[in-house]
Amino acid sequence: MRDVCIVGVGMSKWGEVWRKSMRELHTDAALAAIKNAGVDHLDGLYVGCMSGGLFVGQEHLGAILSDYMGMRGLPAMRVESACASGGMAVRAAYIDVASGMSDIVMASGVEKMTDVSGDDATYALATAADQEYEVFHGATFPGLYAMMAHAHMAKYGTTREMLSMVAVKNHRNGARNPSAQYPFEITAEGVAKSVLIADPLHILDCSPITDGAAAVIVTTVDVAKKLGKPYIKITGSAVGTDTIALAQREDMTTIKAATIATQKALKAADKKIDDVNFAEVHDCFTIAEIVVAESIGKYEPGKAGQAILACDTSLEGRFPMNPSGGLKSKGHPVGATGVAQVVEVYKQLTGQAENGRQIPNNPKVGMTQNMGGSGASSVVHIMEVA
Amino acid sequence: MRDVCIVGVGMSKWGEVWRKSMRELHTDAALAAIKNAGVDHLDGLYVGCMSGGLFVGQEHLGAILSDYMGMRGLPAMRVESACASGGMAVRAAYIDVASGMSDIVMASGVEKMTDVSGDDATYALATAADQEYEVFHGATFPGLYAMMAHAHMAKYGTTREMLSMVAVKNHRNGARNPSAQYPFEITAEGVAKSVLIADPLHILDCSPITDGAAAVIVTTVDVAKKLGKPYIKITGSAVGTDTIALAQREDMTTIKAATIATQKALKAADKKIDDVNFAEVHDCFTIAEIVVAESIGKYEPGKAGQAILACDTSLEGRFPMNPSGGLKSKGHPVGATGVAQVVEVYKQLTGQAENGRQIPNNPKVGMTQNMGGSGASSVVHIMEVA
Repeated sequence: MRDVCIVGVGMSKWGEVWRKSMRELHTDAALAAIKNAGVDHLDGLYVGCMSGGLFVGQEHLGAILSDYMGMRGLPAMRVESACASGGMAVRAAYIDVASGMSDIVMASGVEKMTDVSGDDATYALATAADQEYEVFHGATFPGLYAMMAHAHMAKYGTTREMLSMVAVKNHRNGARNPSAQYPFEITAEGVAKSVLIADPLHILDCSPITDGAAAVIVTTVDVAKKLGKPYIKITGSAVGTDTIALAQREDMTTIKAATIATQKALKAADKKIDDVNFAEVHDCFTIAEIVVAESIGKYEPGKAGQAILACDTSLEGRFPMNPSGGLKSKGHPVGATGVAQVVEVYKQLTGQAENGRQIPNNPKVGMTQNMGGSGASSVVHIMEVA
Repeated sequence: MRDVCIVGVGMSKWGEVWRKSMRELHTDAALAAIKNAGVDHLDGLYVGCMSGGLFVGQEHLGAILSDYMGMRGLPAMRVESACASGGMAVRAAYIDVASGMSDIVMASGVEKMTDVSGDDATYALATAADQEYEVFHGATFPGLYAMMAHAHMAKYGTTREMLSMVAVKNHRNGARNPSAQYPFEITAEGVAKSVLIADPLHILDCSPITDGAAAVIVTTVDVAKKLGKPYIKITGSAVGTDTIALAQREDMTTIKAATIATQKALKAADKKIDDVNFAEVHDCFTIAEIVVAESIGKYEPGKAGQAILACDTSLEGRFPMNPSGGLKSKGHPVGATGVAQVVEVYKQLTGQAENGRQIPNNPKVGMTQNMGGSGASSVVHIMEVA
């Protein structure tokens, strides 16, 4: 396998972007990444999208998005793994370049979620759960993560304050991210007093509904060197899966798919979790960040909440998590999220994070952890300074 | 890149399979392929599906289908390119094995299309066209292919009889295929007198709505040899794209995406089109097979219809097309079709085609051409006797 790197990144506007269609959002991110990398062509496109069909009545995204960005003819396909679709697009592009099939490939992600009603968006998102064994019986994602939160609280004594501090930390980081949908700080008291969605989760425990796209250029080290732009290496890429239905898991206080993916990716990169300086993780709900911090092996089961209270995962802490603001503050256009995580790792490892969001002391190794649904699929990438 | 081969195949029942869910159909095909290949594990799964969201309210297929077939934890993702999703799954698996990332990978496809009404199925299928510039204005797929047929007739004098003979030939082959949804012969008069759908296309010019799944095991030559089962090599794999909207094409009497993909795949295999002994092509409508036969370079523009009348593409002809019965007779569960094409090529090249459907004189080289929508994406594979 060839060494693979990332040499340029791009983001569209994120938020309730009513004046742009899905194809326009994607094109904004794609052309920004192409410009950032300085590439004059692409050999392929992998686009992550969870449900073009349910959100905007458009499948067949590889062809339509290639054409709209001016690259008619380009080999292109969409990949999907619910909210992990973006990370899967990065992985597919990584394998394509590593194989020698293609030299310069775009991995992108897009979701246009606000063209439908809230009820329809809830239905579309619920297709990431088990339709027959969860959704038919009334489960929605806030409900599923609320069950995980209650189980974690019961088993480990995780507190309301720990959940709140995830949101507070991520909004503090997101307030410094020009791409964030909600770039403002919030307080722990504000989280606890916000509208209750599914006990114990309040609305400020939840990531938002977002329109947005992100793109990265994946290529070989040789190409990256010739371009003369900053680049980082992808040294590990792995996927894990588990039962899609939460009730069928061995243990609902951990995300086994994330554990599998992290262990495989670290092994590929010849690293241990403590060699990783920071992580972008899938905080679709505050409890998710706590559970993931433990599932990836950074903290013992039941210990992540205390670490968050102790500011261990803050920007200036020992293991910054979600310096971008995470899904919570930056937004969560489900198909784009996994790609945007890689965008942030690229910026942090090349010293380009904006507005005082840069992690101190020149981090050398970063990771992304992206997951689908209540954690039935997870994709992890380890990236390093070249 | 490593040499890649196919060592086992499986199909579910195809048709209006009301007693099986999508996950059950997929599991039937997947376990059949695993048994056929004799593998004791998989390293990955790529599943092609056009719209789990619109047809059955279920996305996140990699995780749910891995779990349901008893392989919780398996690295898995769905790939999508409308009706070319199955061929894209084969390509993704091919690249994964060629790269050295994985040794034994399943490429599968599934679609469960009859759980929704005909109107809802038509809407779901129309998401393969340009929602904003075609579907909003009333276009459906029979209408789009009818326009291609009229254009082809006007430019080349293509006749009603030529269209009909595509359907007659494919049903003759499909009558010998135990997996076919409509395994019976039809007559040219029967096609011409069947219900008119979109002039000049009658219902017997159209492929049906189908529930079904197909799976193949993709691996290295070393693994295939150790298994001691018949295997074939994949020697070329390529994708082409074009505008998704038919009206924006340079020429609507040809499928440029298929031309691009075929030329690239043949080049990779170091073959010319006349080195290929037979092909499974995407006959979603009778006119599609005529246009594709020309687009892949086998016949000059405007000459495929005459070749079909002259039985050149029949099972005993010089270039058999759709020995399986094609989409027309075998059925068209959109995400599974591209994988089922590879199943047929495997059977033909290993001498295992059932019921007198075997192409005479031991064919050595076969190809598949799978496409999305009205041809905005196309994926081609060249396969050879090992």
